[in-house]
Amino acid sequence: MLARLSRIIRRPTTRLVPTGIGDDCAAVRAAGPGRLLLLKTDAVVEKRHFHRSDPPRAVGWKAACRAVSDIAACGGRPAHALITCVVREEQAGNWLTELYRGIEKAGKKFGFYVVGGELARTDGPAVVNVAMTGEVEAKRFVRRDGGRPGDALFVTGMLGGSLKSGRHLRFQPRLEEARWLTQRFRIRAMMDLSDGLAADLPRLAAACKTGFAVDVESVPRHAGASLEAALGDGEDFELLFALSPDEAPALKRAWRRRFARLRLTQIGSLAPHGVAIGLGSASGYDHFAS
Amino acid sequence: MLARLSRIIRRPTTRLVPTGIGDDCAAVRAAGPGRLLLLKTDAVVEKRHFHRSDPPRAVGWKAACRAVSDIAACGGRPAHALITCVVREEQAGNWLTELYRGIEKAGKKFGFYVVGGELARTDGPAVVNVAMTGEVEAKRFVRRDGGRPGDALFVTGMLGGSLKSGRHLRFQPRLEEARWLTQRFRIRAMMDLSDGLAADLPRLAAACKTGFAVDVESVPRHAGASLEAALGDGEDFELLFALSPDEAPALKRAWRRRFARLRLTQIGSLAPHGVAIGLGSASGYDHFAS
Repeated sequence: MLARLSRIIRRPTTRLVPTGIGDDCAAVRAAGPGRLLLLKTDAVVEKRHFHRSDPPRAVGWKAACRAVSDIAACGGRPAHALITCVVREEQAGNWLTELYRGIEKAGKKFGFYVVGGELARTDGPAVVNVAMTGEVEAKRFVRRDGGRPGDALFVTGMLGGSLKSGRHLRFQPRLEEARWLTQRFRIRAMMDLSDGLAADLPRLAAACKTGFAVDVESVPRHAGASLEAALGDGEDFELLFALSPDEAPALKRAWRRRFARLRLTQIGSLAPHGVAIGLGSASGYDHFAS
Repeated sequence: MLARLSRIIRRPTTRLVPTGIGDDCAAVRAAGPGRLLLLKTDAVVEKRHFHRSDPPRAVGWKAACRAVSDIAACGGRPAHALITCVVREEQAGNWLTELYRGIEKAGKKFGFYVVGGELARTDGPAVVNVAMTGEVEAKRFVRRDGGRPGDALFVTGMLGGSLKSGRHLRFQPRLEEARWLTQRFRIRAMMDLSDGLAADLPRLAAACKTGFAVDVESVPRHAGASLEAALGDGEDFELLFALSPDEAPALKRAWRRRFARLRLTQIGSLAPHGVAIGLGSASGYDHFAS
């Protein structure tokens, strides 16, 4: 089966030391000087992140794009992916092949190569894990914790209703946008919105040791999404970032010229530690609240 | 919960760019010149690779050591690990903490750091995925495909009965041994035995485009393990490797001096393509035979 899957994926033309997907490890030439290696692992689980009836190609796209989105949120570009599929017997044929086609489609679009894979069986919900490497120029690397009180807070795109509408299976990670942002502006803190603004913004603020003040009316909502959905649904995979308020006007102008079709919204600002204005009692998805 | 788990793990003193385990990605300084980055992903699945009643610390050890074993089989050293745990609600407390302690114990012993983790819920069998990076000097990198007809075939340790005896939960990956081998000898092909000699040796031979001839009576068996068990049980995680027959006598002498307590056995040799002597009808574990 792995041999069959390996025929679906492109072979990298650079960097990878050819070993074939069946070797113990994949070997790649390391990133050049001044670059950091980014590492991310992320899983989608049947009945949680996708359903049995979802097209497996879309599941593969989603599994891969979630990791791409995290690499983008650090300012980097994806490079290599390792796929672990834990599936039921009946998924071990066409379902897996289609899943790989979805992953490969994402690889082609966002520039990563699948360099390894692992298969195991289960009799329960399937799990597809994507471990991804990326690279980022050291000076463009953006973490979550560099924001300061007063920084302007922005989100890309629109929020809410991703699961209900099926958008979570075909979302576009904001790779190009994040690369553009980190090249032109001093982005002080950035993350991707996976669990909903109401869960994710407090995390960003906590990492920055700041508070936040959000004008909830300004939060951009998908058509049909309530405010609560926009704050709490999650799985939007839009970027949330902070930069100096001095840079905000220039950013808005430049963004409109460069990304005319994607909205960029200032939703508020970071505030002194302890301040938490605007998210009210809405709460995003917490994997293990406790 | 991730915060609780992050208190269990050591923080690397070099290489890692400090971001905290909650950031989107881990960032590490890339390997130096002349070194390759090794990438491996591997999952253990409840009811297949471990059972509900197994101590979670041993499950963590096993999950981590399987990946270490693959890195060792390429001649490398492990560097960083990303852990994805897909667990049931009742496992999200102490079970996970103990699992991480087992992973951390392996990290301490074999020199890798956990730099990221992901948690998700399931209502089915738990899945623990370990994505591991390693490094290897380019000239010590060993693949599966360099063996030639006539090369001597060796295995370390003893085979068989790993699952029945519980050894699979406490096995020692042959990291030190593999590093020693690649430093002193021209190892032409190497892999770790995870699915049993009867499944793994044909894979190694196929990668080398050779056949093989094994003297089955010479295959080292654990006390109580039948020949069939030694060939087919799998989960031994011993090294299988090929080197020039000219180097075999020197290897045997040097090994006895260096690793007096670990057996090294020449079980046969690689043969011209098409020759398959000695494994008979025994067959190792194939994840998705088809």
